[in-house]
Amino acid sequence: MVALLGICGSLRRASLNRALLQAVAENLPADSTMQLLDGALDLPIFNSDQVEPAAVTHLKDTMRAADGIVFAVPEYNYSIPGGLKNALDWISRPVVASPLRGKPCALIGAASGMSGTIRAQTHMRHILVFSDSPCMNQPEVLIPRAQERFDAEGKLNDESTRALLVRFGATFAAFVQRHKPG
Amino acid sequence: MVALLGICGSLRRASLNRALLQAVAENLPADSTMQLLDGALDLPIFNSDQVEPAAVTHLKDTMRAADGIVFAVPEYNYSIPGGLKNALDWISRPVVASPLRGKPCALIGAASGMSGTIRAQTHMRHILVFSDSPCMNQPEVLIPRAQERFDAEGKLNDESTRALLVRFGATFAAFVQRHKPG
Amino acid sequence: MVALLGICGSLRRASLNRALLQAVAENLPADSTMQLLDGALDLPIFNSDQVEPAAVTHLKDTMRAADGIVFAVPEYNYSIPGGLKNALDWISRPVVASPLRGKPCALIGAASGMSGTIRAQTHMRHILVFSDSPCMNQPEVLIPRAQERFDAEGKLNDESTRALLVRFGATFAAFVQRHKPG
Amino acid sequence: MVALLGICGSLRRASLNRALLQAVAENLPADSTMQLLDGALDLPIFNSDQVEPAAVTHLKDTMRAADGIVFAVPEYNYSIPGGLKNALDWISRPVVASPLRGKPCALIGAASGMSGTIRAQTHMRHILVFSDSPCMNQPEVLIPRAQERFDAEGKLNDESTRALLVRFGATFAAFVQRHKPG
Repeated sequence: MVALLGICGSLRRASLNRALLQAVAENLPADSTMQLLDGALDLPIFNSDQVEPAAVTHLKDTMRAADGIVFAVPEYNYSIPGGLKNALDWISRPVVASPLRGKPCALIGAASGMSGTIRAQTHMRHILVFSDSPCMNQPEVLIPRAQERFDAEGKLNDESTRALLVRFGATFAAFVQRHKPG
Repeated sequence: MVALLGICGSLRRASLNRALLQAVAENLPADSTMQLLDGALDLPIFNSDQVEPAAVTHLKDTMRAADGIVFAVPEYNYSIPGGLKNALDWISRPVVASPLRGKPCALIGAASGMSGTIRAQTHMRHILVFSDSPCMNQPEVLIPRAQERFDAEGKLNDESTRALLVRFGATFAAFVQRHKPG
Repeated sequence: MVALLGICGSLRRASLNRALLQAVAENLPADSTMQLLDGALDLPIFNSDQVEPAAVTHLKDTMRAADGIVFAVPEYNYSIPGGLKNALDWISRPVVASPLRGKPCALIGAASGMSGTIRAQTHMRHILVFSDSPCMNQPEVLIPRAQERFDAEGKLNDESTRALLVRFGATFAAFVQRHKPG
Repeated sequence: MVALLGICGSLRRASLNRALLQAVAENLPADSTMQLLDGALDLPIFNSDQVEPAAVTHLKDTMRAADGIVFAVPEYNYSIPGGLKNALDWISRPVVASPLRGKPCALIGAASGMSGTIRAQTHMRHILVFSDSPCMNQPEVLIPRAQERFDAEGKLNDESTRALLVRFGATFAAFVQRHKPG
């Protein structure tokens, strides 16, 4: 069994990226499950002068327990959301004990424009080099005009996107298996 | 006169990047001044479902009033601090009225390692393309082994760094003048 | 008058990026002209052990004479073409005398997919930071599904793209004027 | 046994990056070997209108036969050398049959300045996402002030660098093993 964790970079209730993450969860192979975190990024701004908040410790434990992590990465200002980056700043300390170290990761993103979060995902890949997290290359999930692919309840209604997500889930489950310790 | 604003990406009290920004302020040409913001990044995580906090409105007004902005960009996890990105996410909305639109910017950064925040500044430059902010190319201020260049009170004690900052300040003041409207 | 130089990163005869550059040239404001270079990138691979080829010296002179340069940047392998990069490697030496130093630049790109050369243009922007070349931020010209926008002779037949190019040309002409020395 | 291929991005005879690659080859674990390519990047500029040169076909075959590839990536103009990129443009076609597809890769780089080729390696990592090549994250080999670490014959004479290369070689050999098909 492969136990995945899904983290959405947006705090918006009607986030298209959360809807996309939900669609990934619904299209995983039979041997895989995904837990979706909600509200986990609603943290104070990282400040190394301060004691680690309990919510950060909890987030670290949850990440550590997962076999692999899928990040849904909205693009704000040509980069990843500050809230997502802030959570990474908290959980990456101390560096040697980061829950991301060696953790298999994959990225997805949805946008209303044509770029499909290319720039944000590029930044996120840099960040995962620092934490020495194997990050799946392909298939990339870069969804342009995402608002046309989900209904009013946030359900995916585009079959080509669903086929991509099925392939993404199967490839990532195998990727996680390959990187399992031992 | 050129009225600059200095924004430090770190909230730490003993931040080397704040010390570097202070050193820039102390080595500006005679026709220029710099106001240093303190605590301005200590904001809630951006959520477009929520009303803009008063602190964000104040930050926008302060940025709008400046002739140019110097960002001190620490590098966390190979990118800019989440707190700095989060502030940019707040102030960039609505996009057409962003206080960064057309605002001359420049970057500085200090790190304890050898890279001198190269990766973080690269990400920050992407972000400023989105906001259509002219960002000075050279001289780049990428300070490696920064802890060896400041004393216990955060005062710069390295003359080659000071010479660089003098050149940086003079070049940026001219850059801001060139980009003044009208 | 503003005398622009257009450099296409592709050597293909039927290059969509050359067609796009041609369309820029045909939609410039009245006070501007653009010379399109052909075959200028067909150079030996850069090797600092070798003497500068005459074609490189000629390219440098041509770039130096221009008021501004428009680079059409195809995306190969998520970056700029090797041939374009190789030409930049030749002309950038010696660094202090690079014809790109201080030269106003702008980027355009066309692709058959959805990304419109976003990644290639991002790399090109980094490169122009090194050469201290002011590079226009906006409007970005990132043309997805470009093959649907040109006819068999390479003539632009899409009015929304033409409107973007008109705005691009006018904005870049003003950008070049602002950066003129003296 | 792990049979590695080493490709140096510079054509210079006295290239520090070739010296670094040679030092990697001399410090591999007992079960690994590395073949160093010489002159393989001295190709015509890529042009999809032209027939693939025999040297490109040979390079593809050599890459395909290797278990993993180490790229020595000098930094020219804040990116990878045009000659290296040009070789990648040739060998990556057709995309589905690229010899880089699924091929384990690792990066090293040496520079005379402080950055140690950070920017060039970042671009190279993007490129390897396109070709779906697993690229080792850590340890990164970013050698600043490289001219102080090699003698006049290009022999490594810095023990901390040698220790890094030993760790690099052992980690990459294991990385290649993990990614072996079947």
